[in-house]
Amino acid sequence: MQINANELRTVLNRVIAKHKELKTEGFSLESCRSMIALMDTDGTGHLNLQEFKHLWNKIKKWKLVFTRYDTDKSSTISSFEMRNALTEAGFQLNNQLYDIICMRYANENMELDFDSYISCLVRLEGMFRAFRAFDRDGDGIIKLNVFEWLQLTMYA
Amino acid sequence: MQINANELRTVLNRVIAKHKELKTEGFSLESCRSMIALMDTDGTGHLNLQEFKHLWNKIKKWKLVFTRYDTDKSSTISSFEMRNALTEAGFQLNNQLYDIICMRYANENMELDFDSYISCLVRLEGMFRAFRAFDRDGDGIIKLNVFEWLQLTMYA
Repeated sequence: MQINANELRTVLNRVIAKHKELKTEGFSLESCRSMIALMDTDGTGHLNLQEFKHLWNKIKKWKLVFTRYDTDKSSTISSFEMRNALTEAGFQLNNQLYDIICMRYANENMELDFDSYISCLVRLEGMFRAFRAFDRDGDGIIKLNVFEWLQLTMYA
Repeated sequence: MQINANELRTVLNRVIAKHKELKTEGFSLESCRSMIALMDTDGTGHLNLQEFKHLWNKIKKWKLVFTRYDTDKSSTISSFEMRNALTEAGFQLNNQLYDIICMRYANENMELDFDSYISCLVRLEGMFRAFRAFDRDGDGIIKLNVFEWLQLTMYA
């Protein structure tokens, strides 16, 4: 079984349409392509069953965090709530990163709807994984030439 | 003047709707957020007039390349045509990178519509710029810790 971006989009949007407590305009094809790139650990351009299951389990876990930290029950998560949600989801970030993430993923009212929130977490997980994979000697520093840099960042 | 992702989306989609020779489903909000992040050189989360002009001039130039390399007049660009288009647009890449780019931006028929093509080029330009900015000693190698890595890749 191999899932492409269109199929992923259909599955995700069918499921979230049933959850009225999650505000979203639905996942765009662009978001689903990005998700596939970030979860495609074997580099096929598709998700196999195992990769899809991994994504699915992550989304289920992150959905629980979303509803728990949406303290004002707005069906969105505010930039303020997002900090706690990211920590609960297992990401220890500095203030500058929280600000960057909100600038990239929140809307004009400084809120993240469900699809932006999930896109953000998928990318965070993918980027942490890419860093660890490249940091082969585990010294916390990666060294990249321009082609390595582009290979890691264009497929995201 | 400051342009946000919604405004950018409206402007771009109005313009491309007039060009029947460009096949596209329109730019998604997610694509426009990514474009803002990549062209936002002063880190405000918006495009100022100068940044918008820079993006606009790039899109005009890249549109000419798109129509020139769409040799079969399909209003899309095939993965094969994309290699020549990227070279013409000034990007010298290796084969692995061409493959990665097609996997990320082409559809199931191995074609890129206009919005995917532009999103790809904006990211390529942004990533080259980020590399050059970080390669302060100009030796072609960048060294990043995990926070620097995330700051560069989450705002894209």
